[in-house]
Amino acid sequence: MTLTIFKKPLRVHFSPEKKLHESLRNILGFYPVNITLYQLAFRHSSVAQEIKKGVKDSNERLEFLGDSIIGSVVADYLFKKFPYKDEGFLTKMRSKMVSRAKHNQIALKLGLNAFIESNNDRFRVNKPSSINGDAYEALIGAIYLDKGYKQAQKFILTRIINVHIDMDEVETKEIDFKSKFIEWVQKEKKEYRFETINETANATDKLFTVQLLVYNEIVGTAQHISKKRAEQMVAEHACITLEI
Amino acid sequence: MTLTIFKKPLRVHFSPEKKLHESLRNILGFYPVNITLYQLAFRHSSVAQEIKKGVKDSNERLEFLGDSIIGSVVADYLFKKFPYKDEGFLTKMRSKMVSRAKHNQIALKLGLNAFIESNNDRFRVNKPSSINGDAYEALIGAIYLDKGYKQAQKFILTRIINVHIDMDEVETKEIDFKSKFIEWVQKEKKEYRFETINETANATDKLFTVQLLVYNEIVGTAQHISKKRAEQMVAEHACITLEI
Repeated sequence: MTLTIFKKPLRVHFSPEKKLHESLRNILGFYPVNITLYQLAFRHSSVAQEIKKGVKDSNERLEFLGDSIIGSVVADYLFKKFPYKDEGFLTKMRSKMVSRAKHNQIALKLGLNAFIESNNDRFRVNKPSSINGDAYEALIGAIYLDKGYKQAQKFILTRIINVHIDMDEVETKEIDFKSKFIEWVQKEKKEYRFETINETANATDKLFTVQLLVYNEIVGTAQHISKKRAEQMVAEHACITLEI
Repeated sequence: MTLTIFKKPLRVHFSPEKKLHESLRNILGFYPVNITLYQLAFRHSSVAQEIKKGVKDSNERLEFLGDSIIGSVVADYLFKKFPYKDEGFLTKMRSKMVSRAKHNQIALKLGLNAFIESNNDRFRVNKPSSINGDAYEALIGAIYLDKGYKQAQKFILTRIINVHIDMDEVETKEIDFKSKFIEWVQKEKKEYRFETINETANATDKLFTVQLLVYNEIVGTAQHISKKRAEQMVAEHACITLEI
């Protein structure tokens, strides 16, 4: 039998942010020390104040930091989980585990959207879902600064990967970038087309060059012996550039 | 007055790899615990044995791990060094500090090239300099696995950044990707050309589309209102793809 007692530190009793302390305790598994770091992690740039010319107190810097901590923790996890897989496999797995879409999903599962401060009038149509993923990354940055690498690692392993990431799905699922791109472009009501601009005549040495155009402007080009693969490559490039 | 005594652990006295232990002590500032990790870090894939079908005991997996550890440590360093700079600045600084060229340079300054095992017959013309940078990244992976995040961080901060990276130079220097690409392409004796394929007629709304071709194949396209900038963009893309 195990009995776990979460002692509530004195600072929590006397904090004006007692409620936030308690809510974060439920998400993190521990009481934050420096609560202002977490408040910053949830502050979208649309509500941030300028603290110095050109610099706002938004979560964007924490997001930069948290993003690389997640990258390291996931690299370490994959390195140890798959001792007989090469670095190509590890790289591919990581990019699926830390994708924007995955981070948005994780943020919603943790319920971070309830904490995010943003000025909704600033968004023309819909609030972008990336706001959630960004807050998740910033939260990891806050944990890292507040409690160190080990605690951030523990949180990611026990409360994210073990609980919210289906590793079998990650391993088997190939991302269909073309569909992803088309979905986005249709939602945004933009004109686009894929063009195969060059097919080598020689049948044994076929090479397809696919160009992706948005409003008649080339946004990317890719070449492959398979036309489908070339389309996927150029769409993947577009998805990364557009942060879809 | 400070007196630092490096105690030599018993395991070093009795190790068959005593010499490697001592050499690494000079580079790292501490004696390695698990020496096989460091031996692996210096083993290029050209001399690696197949340990399982399709998997070699080369340094490539450690390189994957070390690369992300370096990314995190540098992100943390920049976050704290520049409290009033935005994430765009931090991202740019980091990409210059962890570039392939920088890692090759660091490896040579540390003298890692003397430790690398590789089969030189495998390289057609010259040994690629990236072999050194790869070994540096793998070494960080080995330190991380051997001694943990904190020790890897300490090594990178005190023995790399403080000693071998000129931060003023990093901050002011813009990388000239076009020159970098041309230098490489001339060394490799490949045919290339930059083509401006489309100039918008309207003078107030000028947009240049620059294509980079190698042996008449498009390797990249970029658009910008400045032709020079478009050329830099397409060359940067090529440098990243070609890992120059």
